[in-house]
Amino acid sequence: MAIITIIGAGMMGSGMSRPARENGHEVRLVGTPLDREIIREASVSGRHVPMKRNLPDGIKYYQIEDVKTALQGTDYIICGVSSFGVDWFADEILPILPNGIPVLSVTKGLMDDEQGNLLTFPEFLASRMPKERNITFSAIGGPCTSYELMDKHQTMVYFCGPDKAVLEQFKALLQTEYYHIETSTDIRGVEGCVAMKNAYAVAVSMAIGMAERLDGPDAYMYNPQAAMFGQSIREMTRIVRLLGGNSDLAGGIPGAGDLFVTIFGGRTRRLGYLLGYGKTYAEAKEELKGVTLESVVIITRMSRALRKMAEQGKVDLADFSLLLFLDSVINQGAAADIPWNTFR
Amino acid sequence: MAIITIIGAGMMGSGMSRPARENGHEVRLVGTPLDREIIREASVSGRHVPMKRNLPDGIKYYQIEDVKTALQGTDYIICGVSSFGVDWFADEILPILPNGIPVLSVTKGLMDDEQGNLLTFPEFLASRMPKERNITFSAIGGPCTSYELMDKHQTMVYFCGPDKAVLEQFKALLQTEYYHIETSTDIRGVEGCVAMKNAYAVAVSMAIGMAERLDGPDAYMYNPQAAMFGQSIREMTRIVRLLGGNSDLAGGIPGAGDLFVTIFGGRTRRLGYLLGYGKTYAEAKEELKGVTLESVVIITRMSRALRKMAEQGKVDLADFSLLLFLDSVINQGAAADIPWNTFR
Repeated sequence: MAIITIIGAGMMGSGMSRPARENGHEVRLVGTPLDREIIREASVSGRHVPMKRNLPDGIKYYQIEDVKTALQGTDYIICGVSSFGVDWFADEILPILPNGIPVLSVTKGLMDDEQGNLLTFPEFLASRMPKERNITFSAIGGPCTSYELMDKHQTMVYFCGPDKAVLEQFKALLQTEYYHIETSTDIRGVEGCVAMKNAYAVAVSMAIGMAERLDGPDAYMYNPQAAMFGQSIREMTRIVRLLGGNSDLAGGIPGAGDLFVTIFGGRTRRLGYLLGYGKTYAEAKEELKGVTLESVVIITRMSRALRKMAEQGKVDLADFSLLLFLDSVINQGAAADIPWNTFR
Repeated sequence: MAIITIIGAGMMGSGMSRPARENGHEVRLVGTPLDREIIREASVSGRHVPMKRNLPDGIKYYQIEDVKTALQGTDYIICGVSSFGVDWFADEILPILPNGIPVLSVTKGLMDDEQGNLLTFPEFLASRMPKERNITFSAIGGPCTSYELMDKHQTMVYFCGPDKAVLEQFKALLQTEYYHIETSTDIRGVEGCVAMKNAYAVAVSMAIGMAERLDGPDAYMYNPQAAMFGQSIREMTRIVRLLGGNSDLAGGIPGAGDLFVTIFGGRTRRLGYLLGYGKTYAEAKEELKGVTLESVVIITRMSRALRKMAEQGKVDLADFSLLLFLDSVINQGAAADIPWNTFR
């Protein structure tokens, strides 16, 4: 049995305690400064309030002040922060990690730079870590909602990272009868899907909102959703290829699978639904106040990067008309009037 | 304006009357011997009883005895039979078609032969037609339920066939503000998706039935469906490649898009649901009595073909473990106990 320290007690970070405890590992759950209440309540009652679930027995809880204590003797790290916490993780946590410790991240997203280059989070974290400290960064992709992992629903995911042996270690640690893990060194392929599925889930959900606006709450209208789903995976395939990943992943577990699960609930679906229902982005944002929207960040970043690449003659923007349409709705206040005839 | 004769007055054949009439063409709808009642009622009241919809105004209706009258002066043919009617269409209709007339088919499926070779329906029909008669066979793929086409829901489809110019003619005839058509000469790619989506819709629907068996009618359980969806497109990608088609189609409109729409309703979903709920195939078949199950045919044929190809060293069966699992449930009475760990 190993000691696994999870840093970040949000939904997905905390969710990872399920397979870890199932397999008998010692789990130390450390809250970020934003998780103070979650840790306080869970350490008293075992309850994860936002997740509306009891966490597994036997977890050791730590507030952020005690992170160094939590790191003593730990064998593995799970980074449980959202994309909005990655800089914090890089600034505050990376410097205090033990040398040689493997890190597995649940963070979803991509960074972009001035030139339109895109960077996955495992790559970003590695770029912030001196080589001689010998720390590898791996990440999780695929259709897995934290609620359902907690409830032991059958789930298939990918662990991706630069070192196959490390990935196999993580798989051995965390695979259970309900949590099925494939490993891949194709970080850009897997993480490209992980990031983009949030963007495209807005599109499919928009068709759901549109159906209800046109036909009422019992609308039987699936052709438009299905068209949006197909167009989404089509563009995602091109983006993964552009990132240098294996584009088959876009049609597989991390792409199509994860897009599928994302449109059945959560804030991304809600945003798309409201836009399709006829709200402007400003109105939808108002209604979703306080909710972090990773989908908006990735739509904005990827559209920006694609435009830069188009200026350099590297891509044809017509191949990404759905994504750029989403960008126009979110960043230019355009109406959510789906440009069906531009899809190819 | 053109004269379009639709042969086969089932759901999808009749559905095609919507865009054809929208664009002002003369539409002649000919029933097969199985469609006698549909034609009789529609010719009196305009009502398509199985579809629970009124057909567009101005259609001319014909019973099968009058098919030659319907063919006089017609410019285009739409073949509206299901896969169970293809032999009938080849035997009875092909010989009486005017030379040089373009045929567009809505039929979904693939044929297999003794050696494990697979044939799409446009290829099969062409093989039954002497070259000198100069008739091309095209086909429709993509997420389009007949109800929704009739209700003018936004829909994206592919027209595929050997002759790009003919495909563009069909597109010009039938494209409307709600029916969006892309054309492709990749018949095997598009038709491979069209056929296989019926097979894999059983798998995804099985996860839906399983969720309800385990957690009741309000089950919130999407991770398993999503995993099945991803695994389905993964295997479909391999099958399209095997057929010599562009495997990107599996993640696009004809593959992922059509699989998506298929799991929201209809007999294929119902079959998968019952199996996932715990019924044997024999019990499910009993409950679905009288319903034609194209999904069962394609699961059986494709599994048979893959096994033959494996014997010849052309494929690794482990790449198709979901399909072969479906085959074992349907053709060997196996329990619908999803083999999660065999998926790759």
